[in-house]
Amino acid sequence: MSQRRVGIWLIGAFGGVGPTVAVGLSALRRGIVEPVGLTTCLSGFDQLDLDDPSAFAVGGHDIRRTDFLQSVREFQHRARIFPPDLIEPCRDDLLNWSHNVCPGTIFNSGPTIARLAELPEVRPNESPRAAIDRIQADLNAFRRNHRLDQLVVVNVASTEPPFPLTEAHASLECFEAACRVKDHPPLLPASGLYALAALDLGLPYVNFTPSLGASFPAALELAERRRAVVAGQDGKTGETLLKTVLAPMFQKRHLRVLSWVGHNIFGNRDGVVLNDPDNKASKIRTKDQVVSSILGYKPQTHVSIEYIESLDDWKTAWDHIHFEGFLGVRMMMQFTWQGCDSILAAPLVIDLARLALHAQRRAEVGILKYLACFWKSPMGVEEHDFFKQYAMLEEYVASVAAERAETLVGS
Amino acid sequence: MSQRRVGIWLIGAFGGVGPTVAVGLSALRRGIVEPVGLTTCLSGFDQLDLDDPSAFAVGGHDIRRTDFLQSVREFQHRARIFPPDLIEPCRDDLLNWSHNVCPGTIFNSGPTIARLAELPEVRPNESPRAAIDRIQADLNAFRRNHRLDQLVVVNVASTEPPFPLTEAHASLECFEAACRVKDHPPLLPASGLYALAALDLGLPYVNFTPSLGASFPAALELAERRRAVVAGQDGKTGETLLKTVLAPMFQKRHLRVLSWVGHNIFGNRDGVVLNDPDNKASKIRTKDQVVSSILGYKPQTHVSIEYIESLDDWKTAWDHIHFEGFLGVRMMMQFTWQGCDSILAAPLVIDLARLALHAQRRAEVGILKYLACFWKSPMGVEEHDFFKQYAMLEEYVASVAAERAETLVGS
Amino acid sequence: MSQRRVGIWLIGAFGGVGPTVAVGLSALRRGIVEPVGLTTCLSGFDQLDLDDPSAFAVGGHDIRRTDFLQSVREFQHRARIFPPDLIEPCRDDLLNWSHNVCPGTIFNSGPTIARLAELPEVRPNESPRAAIDRIQADLNAFRRNHRLDQLVVVNVASTEPPFPLTEAHASLECFEAACRVKDHPPLLPASGLYALAALDLGLPYVNFTPSLGASFPAALELAERRRAVVAGQDGKTGETLLKTVLAPMFQKRHLRVLSWVGHNIFGNRDGVVLNDPDNKASKIRTKDQVVSSILGYKPQTHVSIEYIESLDDWKTAWDHIHFEGFLGVRMMMQFTWQGCDSILAAPLVIDLARLALHAQRRAEVGILKYLACFWKSPMGVEEHDFFKQYAMLEEYVASVAAERAETLVGS
Amino acid sequence: MSQRRVGIWLIGAFGGVGPTVAVGLSALRRGIVEPVGLTTCLSGFDQLDLDDPSAFAVGGHDIRRTDFLQSVREFQHRARIFPPDLIEPCRDDLLNWSHNVCPGTIFNSGPTIARLAELPEVRPNESPRAAIDRIQADLNAFRRNHRLDQLVVVNVASTEPPFPLTEAHASLECFEAACRVKDHPPLLPASGLYALAALDLGLPYVNFTPSLGASFPAALELAERRRAVVAGQDGKTGETLLKTVLAPMFQKRHLRVLSWVGHNIFGNRDGVVLNDPDNKASKIRTKDQVVSSILGYKPQTHVSIEYIESLDDWKTAWDHIHFEGFLGVRMMMQFTWQGCDSILAAPLVIDLARLALHAQRRAEVGILKYLACFWKSPMGVEEHDFFKQYAMLEEYVASVAAERAETLVGS
Repeated sequence: MSQRRVGIWLIGAFGGVGPTVAVGLSALRRGIVEPVGLTTCLSGFDQLDLDDPSAFAVGGHDIRRTDFLQSVREFQHRARIFPPDLIEPCRDDLLNWSHNVCPGTIFNSGPTIARLAELPEVRPNESPRAAIDRIQADLNAFRRNHRLDQLVVVNVASTEPPFPLTEAHASLECFEAACRVKDHPPLLPASGLYALAALDLGLPYVNFTPSLGASFPAALELAERRRAVVAGQDGKTGETLLKTVLAPMFQKRHLRVLSWVGHNIFGNRDGVVLNDPDNKASKIRTKDQVVSSILGYKPQTHVSIEYIESLDDWKTAWDHIHFEGFLGVRMMMQFTWQGCDSILAAPLVIDLARLALHAQRRAEVGILKYLACFWKSPMGVEEHDFFKQYAMLEEYVASVAAERAETLVGS
Repeated sequence: MSQRRVGIWLIGAFGGVGPTVAVGLSALRRGIVEPVGLTTCLSGFDQLDLDDPSAFAVGGHDIRRTDFLQSVREFQHRARIFPPDLIEPCRDDLLNWSHNVCPGTIFNSGPTIARLAELPEVRPNESPRAAIDRIQADLNAFRRNHRLDQLVVVNVASTEPPFPLTEAHASLECFEAACRVKDHPPLLPASGLYALAALDLGLPYVNFTPSLGASFPAALELAERRRAVVAGQDGKTGETLLKTVLAPMFQKRHLRVLSWVGHNIFGNRDGVVLNDPDNKASKIRTKDQVVSSILGYKPQTHVSIEYIESLDDWKTAWDHIHFEGFLGVRMMMQFTWQGCDSILAAPLVIDLARLALHAQRRAEVGILKYLACFWKSPMGVEEHDFFKQYAMLEEYVASVAAERAETLVGS
Repeated sequence: MSQRRVGIWLIGAFGGVGPTVAVGLSALRRGIVEPVGLTTCLSGFDQLDLDDPSAFAVGGHDIRRTDFLQSVREFQHRARIFPPDLIEPCRDDLLNWSHNVCPGTIFNSGPTIARLAELPEVRPNESPRAAIDRIQADLNAFRRNHRLDQLVVVNVASTEPPFPLTEAHASLECFEAACRVKDHPPLLPASGLYALAALDLGLPYVNFTPSLGASFPAALELAERRRAVVAGQDGKTGETLLKTVLAPMFQKRHLRVLSWVGHNIFGNRDGVVLNDPDNKASKIRTKDQVVSSILGYKPQTHVSIEYIESLDDWKTAWDHIHFEGFLGVRMMMQFTWQGCDSILAAPLVIDLARLALHAQRRAEVGILKYLACFWKSPMGVEEHDFFKQYAMLEEYVASVAAERAETLVGS
Repeated sequence: MSQRRVGIWLIGAFGGVGPTVAVGLSALRRGIVEPVGLTTCLSGFDQLDLDDPSAFAVGGHDIRRTDFLQSVREFQHRARIFPPDLIEPCRDDLLNWSHNVCPGTIFNSGPTIARLAELPEVRPNESPRAAIDRIQADLNAFRRNHRLDQLVVVNVASTEPPFPLTEAHASLECFEAACRVKDHPPLLPASGLYALAALDLGLPYVNFTPSLGASFPAALELAERRRAVVAGQDGKTGETLLKTVLAPMFQKRHLRVLSWVGHNIFGNRDGVVLNDPDNKASKIRTKDQVVSSILGYKPQTHVSIEYIESLDDWKTAWDHIHFEGFLGVRMMMQFTWQGCDSILAAPLVIDLARLALHAQRRAEVGILKYLACFWKSPMGVEEHDFFKQYAMLEEYVASVAAERAETLVGS
């Protein structure tokens, strides 16, 4: 049996995460790195029929004039975090895949993102309909040219400002009606257009950011209609991951959290965008809810994100947790997390792409709730406890494995 | 139905933990504190028929000349951590319970512990047999005088040096034979004598320390013979708790831990004893194994414990975790934990007493493995992941609840 | 020679710092604490003829209905930081001194401070002239009733919003002219009224806060005219002190600071006021300038102050310093400072009161520049390096000592 | 006037610091890095006639088989801390200078250092006299071959175990007498042989390590006799630097330090050697004395150094400072320092070489006490306060500048 050929389409391909995904897929294919950081390469996951990293072709949309090779080199030059001899063997892949990246859209993404646009094809006044058509043409061309069996679309673009939902988003019918109204105010930001374009083609859609994406009823209805899978949102990579690991400990030991303060500083391109208070608001919202949800009560919480240029990709967090124990005694835990944002995110993107493609092959439809452990704001799931979320994933793996075993026995 | 009357017997009653247990039980009984820090007061545990804190009488052994009230006052004066108005309402309980504390034994506990002995009744050259007889007489007198339905023995004494086991400890038969050999070198340290004394009377025995206690085959055989329950060992209160919470995160995210360094500083009486390298060795051994066990491989680890007098009960830990993520990138997490040792330990002691008495009533026998989440070195259990250990406890609660429901239906 | 009798007048007497000053002066007088934290009790300062703590009577203004004893007890109850047996011996002093505290003014202090006012005498629409007259009457009555040789006024009230200066503040003449204009918009916030009232009586005035106080030309001119001394402003107690200690190290080692981020969290009454963005702005401004001033260039800096109620007086700061060393290598220093705000401030207030009274006796006039080491924003001094500032104080002490020696020889 | 030609001779040339000095001198000469980290490149020091980095030729002794280029590449590959494109332009210098490195001696350096020896010329049983002769021949050949005007010898070799001094070291006469005794036990470790060899030739000798070097009376007498200058010892680069910066703050604010705990972890080659308890003892001794010396009393102190391989050159320190303020309140400061050991040390080595050569030209003799700010254990100086030490250096610079100005006027 010849290997399946699959594609991953990165919205915001040349940001911090996209090039790291690309160099990572190439390096894995060439066997020059181990799959450290990939959950789906832990033992246990070999029970699923996941695509090998070597099966992936890479494409995407971006609004800046660069390519994967240049982006990776710049990243390495600025942040000096991965071995310099990693890039050269991946050079051809990075250059080839760069040809698959098409001009994106900045429709309604807010002024801070719009300022990043460098390509003449990125037109601020393109109509949403025209943008969707163009996106779909790009996706179809990529599938056709690379003779892909499957294609997954992943949003790794910069965070948009929060987008208020209205009645028009409440159902596909309402939404389509609103679209027909002449001069209707914008119904979606760019992330929503990409999501609709992908889902309308029946493609798996993964939202690694806190932007709107497919997180509104009309989009989910479309996913059902087109038999597409959806996963999201906002990858849980660092400080929030720790919150969802530590809060269950305080809860299970009946220690009363009085306050939980988290300060985040970092300086990569995402940071430039998050430095706009509007864009930052989306991020803080998803970071701030998890603690109360796990504890079952609301301690005082505070989350800040600041753009500190010199740190580049080193996302550094300081959390101060003040808690009360027996006899009213107040105690403290503090942690600092010094992680490279893109390096933590990229393997999760590959994990999610593999799992979403796998789900599509199994004819799953709609939100993949068992992926909750990957998200700051898991769609359709209230659980934030990382270990309970992970148990959901393990149960899924076990049930698929059991199914496969039955099939084999049956055949 | 009149309330059961139960007792808790604290070996090392006047150390850091014992007086905190006493003032805590009194304050809970009087309703002046909430049961913060007690796992068994979380919702869910009300499905078990656990003894109310007000049902407990307190007794114990110690080698120093003081009482519960004085110990609590000294603690408050030195460490200023709990509200000063907490003590006065508990005054009578503390004085009354102090009358139940008898002179302990320092048989083979090492010179550092021996130096703490202040009572003439604590005779260094008492024979082990005489010590056991005396301990049993004390336990029986306490049960009789207070008309207790049940009594649980908890070791909260200072950590002894590691005690090497021999063939003589491998079975009850061998042990009894060795006991009969004249001039045999000491077969047990003090903690072992207390454990044997308790188990021989069929009492539940809980070892909150890393000392030997009942953790050798002959003692466990004796527990089986006398239908006694055993729980231990070494309460997981602070830095090690965090290790068993954080290591699973690194494992599940496939992040490779390169090194894990933990430095602990504190200055309470336990610290004086741990400052003796022999005694410290016991503690470090149990603190250092958990990370490798959870990860499934051995990163470089280092654990230190230093006695810093000014910190008193504030056990402060700094952990530095160096880990590798995708593409060979090395990142860091650090945490500091500023916890009050006795305040963290005391509610767990009450939890364990309640659960052990409950187990005895249910006619359970031997090691209570479902209590693994309380221990740095859970007897009879390989699992160190705190959340998997906690799931064992939840399963136990659920199964008892189901049993009770059936019984009710059946009746 | 009978001892001089001196007074300290605390504006904001019942805030966090005022009651700590009061209990501290009482405890020092009674010999139950050592003068830890007082710079002026270091050896060397005995060369100056400073007033003994026992020479001080305490008075002040406040807008809330409480007293020193109650404030100290509340503080002790909430924060549990000083020995509980400290308060009782100081009880009489605290009660007596409370009678010396008069209703203050909230003229133009901003809505957040105004909301704290509890006394009917604190009238929002009192004219500035009437407020000054009332303040001066209070000061004179205190001096008269206690037969004080000298009186120093210290502002320890909550931080006001920044107050924009105009042409009217540029000279005493302009200021007096503006005062005569009918319906002129408010020329000063409350802190300015207090300062004018004190200086106009020729009293030493110390501004321990970042509020305006006497920091405008017209006030300084008045000080010259009345031969009064002025010291300020904004006591350097914690994170900023550390900045002015550490930045010189980076500068002298030619290490290039890339970014310096400081996050402050605390929860005492000052924190409530600082939680108002207007009031906070004053504080952040004085905290943020020192690093660039010392380094001689402007790294990226960020300072935050957040009100976290559970921390009460524990002002906790996390600073992250990113710096470049040889060959372009980037390194990090981080610190956390866990200090009690009032406890750090109160001894400096006593130091400053002693030094200001001493200066007045020596017929010094205007800004006491040699006190720069006490201030976040030293008036009239550009130097922020703590050790250079401290050297200025040492030089002053040496020169006074030399003068005294000469006088003695001469006599 | 043609430029002076000077040489720097590195004992332990291929360790962590040596290759960084070499690549740094080359990169400075080629203008591809700025002199960040060099104190002598701060403004003010241009008043001294110091040698330009481009004037330096590099030579040295080592016991391992490698070269500067390979060492720098390995360092870059392991630690990824400086820009990879830094090395190529320096390639020729590094290769050329490697030819100047001769086999060293391990005479009496302890077994851990001896195990590192790879060259057949490094003979364990060479006599001290033969070793000194060989060292001097190497130094003379370097001077001759490169036609150097001056040569400075700097010890950057691994730390030796503490070496106990005897009567024989108390004067040059006693020492020479002991040398003549047949079968006398070793009088010196290797560092002492190197020091004697250099001083006997009248060369400036700088001891960047805590090893013995020239720190005994007989060696200092020899320096006087040969008119040589001596500087040392043990470069103050990280945690100890911070101690000598922070302790003066606590002292000047009259805050009472109760305990100061410092834990250091790192993993470079020096760390391998320091992992031997004997070698570590030398280091801890110099790190542990500074705090008490500055404070004027002895708080509890604890210093640890642990070899954690994964950290390589990232010397990470955690310090916990527990202190008492006003009214007996206990507070905490903690810091973490994440510095690259070699990167912090190398520019100081260049500073010291420049200053020692300058001193020799000025005909200074003996210990250069004004260099105290560079040392953990400044020879001949009791002062540990970094800023007071730095003031000594500034005074020296000012006095030399004044002298030069006079000379110019006079000429």
